[in-house]
Amino acid sequence: MPATIFEKMSARARQAGAINLGQGFPDAPGPADILRAAADALLTRSSQYPPSGGLPELRAAVADHYARHQQLDLSAEEVIVTSGATEAIAATLLALIQPGDEVILFAPLYDAYLPLVERAGGVARVIRLAPPCWRITQEALEAAASSRTRLLLLNNPLNPSAAIMDREQLSLIARFCVERDLIAICDEVWEHVTFEGLAHTPLMGLPGMRGRTVKIGSAGKIFSLTGWKVGWMCAAAPIATLLGRAHQFLTFTTPPNLQWAVSEGLGKPHAWFSAVRADYQRSRDRLASGLRAAGYVVDPGTGTWFSTIDLAASGISLSDQAFCERIIGEAGVAAIPVSAFYPRDPITHLARLCFAKSDAVIDEAVARLARFR
Amino acid sequence: MPATIFEKMSARARQAGAINLGQGFPDAPGPADILRAAADALLTRSSQYPPSGGLPELRAAVADHYARHQQLDLSAEEVIVTSGATEAIAATLLALIQPGDEVILFAPLYDAYLPLVERAGGVARVIRLAPPCWRITQEALEAAASSRTRLLLLNNPLNPSAAIMDREQLSLIARFCVERDLIAICDEVWEHVTFEGLAHTPLMGLPGMRGRTVKIGSAGKIFSLTGWKVGWMCAAAPIATLLGRAHQFLTFTTPPNLQWAVSEGLGKPHAWFSAVRADYQRSRDRLASGLRAAGYVVDPGTGTWFSTIDLAASGISLSDQAFCERIIGEAGVAAIPVSAFYPRDPITHLARLCFAKSDAVIDEAVARLARFR
Ligand SMILES: CSCCC(=O)C(=O)O
Ligand SMILES: CSCCC(=O)C(=O)O
Repeated sequence: MPATIFEKMSARARQAGAINLGQGFPDAPGPADILRAAADALLTRSSQYPPSGGLPELRAAVADHYARHQQLDLSAEEVIVTSGATEAIAATLLALIQPGDEVILFAPLYDAYLPLVERAGGVARVIRLAPPCWRITQEALEAAASSRTRLLLLNNPLNPSAAIMDREQLSLIARFCVERDLIAICDEVWEHVTFEGLAHTPLMGLPGMRGRTVKIGSAGKIFSLTGWKVGWMCAAAPIATLLGRAHQFLTFTTPPNLQWAVSEGLGKPHAWFSAVRADYQRSRDRLASGLRAAGYVVDPGTGTWFSTIDLAASGISLSDQAFCERIIGEAGVAAIPVSAFYPRDPITHLARLCFAKSDAVIDEAVARLARFR
Repeated sequence: MPATIFEKMSARARQAGAINLGQGFPDAPGPADILRAAADALLTRSSQYPPSGGLPELRAAVADHYARHQQLDLSAEEVIVTSGATEAIAATLLALIQPGDEVILFAPLYDAYLPLVERAGGVARVIRLAPPCWRITQEALEAAASSRTRLLLLNNPLNPSAAIMDREQLSLIARFCVERDLIAICDEVWEHVTFEGLAHTPLMGLPGMRGRTVKIGSAGKIFSLTGWKVGWMCAAAPIATLLGRAHQFLTFTTPPNLQWAVSEGLGKPHAWFSAVRADYQRSRDRLASGLRAAGYVVDPGTGTWFSTIDLAASGISLSDQAFCERIIGEAGVAAIPVSAFYPRDPITHLARLCFAKSDAVIDEAVARLARFR
């Protein structure tokens, strides 16, 4: 297994004293009341083992949250709390893959996916998506499928393209899964981070998908607290049972004080989530317009905390890797080359930047990248 | 994969309103200053991703702790922080087992071990240990070994026998590992929970073992905060690199506020750890003498939070499972049947009870079990 690009770039950013727009995390402390709730729980509630599947309060809060925000009808028992979405993906793959099973994936892909599929004994069939539309086609799905295909693993909204899948794309995938009797694992950690009024559509809500989808979510992303490592996986009861079994042997459970705080946070009114979205959209726009003023061609993206610089269109004749190398050393800004998300045939002209930062940090990064041009 | 016995018994205890001496966790809130440190860190420090291997402060604190308490010479880079010891075991097995590798295990065994070995593609060779000595012999090791043996996975002090391995036993294992060029994974989560002045000997400290041992530890056990899920795995750099790679794709990292608090806790003076030990020894003795007065034959144990009732010697002609069924329903006390720790040929006359409870809870449990006789 290789070392993750996020870790490598963050380590280099620390060494170089660079502004870290690589690994995706906000530089704000996070919501004060949720932090306070977690601190209070440490002092007033039990710090001993919660149930392995999660605190009943949090399982119910996740189900309720998705009922209110995404019109899903989950029961609390269909939610398993995990130590972050990465653990949810690991548990799901280890629970559902049998040696030789084929799994359809889409590149660009989060770098944990492929090693986990292979470690579980699965055979990865990677469909390559490309800018500007990152579109999945029926033909590509058919070409990737075989009689041994069992699973399909999807990230929507998609990191690092920052694209949100529309209903037509999702319907295509849903029909494909139903026809071939596949289980879909949908990593929806960015579900709340959508812009321009676009709403996230959960794959699980599409016809035929309720009983065959594992929906993965992340409190770290929803509440801008990436270090908390509280996530969950939701699935119909027969699948949830299998997921829970794998989870109990991976981490067993997750700190109860953080679970309490997240269960409170999930009950916040719609307006709270809209305000967070609006804040991130402002940051996105600030980075994009700054970079554009400096002569970069930018895709601000419609979801996630990331925008991309199009190097080719910007007249920069460097590969994404070379560009990221150069700017970390010469400009003092860390970014992630999009090619790192491709196991082969990489897209090499896009550099990903995280805009979940304060205005001052964004402005300074823009100024540095402007000087670099 | 089966549902873990601990979870099942805790759920039944909750339903039945029984005193839960099954799953191992203290009923005290935990050390006030460590809880306070974790709460303060939430309010004053970053809740964003720490490095995947752990906060440098905690990695250094673990290395330093083992230098002071166990005369080990680890560097901070040889420590990888995990989301609990269960994750450390999972990461280690997924990192080090290649399909077909044989792994020597010892029953009674913690119920995560076998499913994880098998999920990683390993072939388990289980050596059966039995009371009263739970002794590992050269013959048993030789009989379990083959040319495909790569790993040996050991828990010391041993849950649920509550036995501490002496130097002779450990030397036997060390020589065996060196001769056959095996890596030993030593789950030492109970290292601080030893009684009667007995000291824990880390397997890594034995001749030839420094470069071939993965030492696993748990802040939850050391600080009586089982829900925190902060653990670590220590190994020489070439092995640590592999472990870190597996870890990054299982949970990536662990909440930083808990890491800060644990790093402070590990620096406490020797007297603090002795006082905790003495407290648990008092609880152990209270449970044992109460049960003995009620006519039970008890092995109080010399390490861990567990004692065992010898049903056969107590004149109770029930299997451990039947006894545990009966007492949860009729006496209102939950315990764990030791047979649950055996994949086959179980020992069936021992019931494990957790004594990490307040005096009042111990006394009430004893009174209930006395009435049950
Ligand atoms: C777990 S580190 C990576 C965080 C992230 O989602 C990203 O930067 O893409
Ligand atoms: C992870 S639940 C089990 C806790 C424990 O160590 C035990 O009860 O043996």
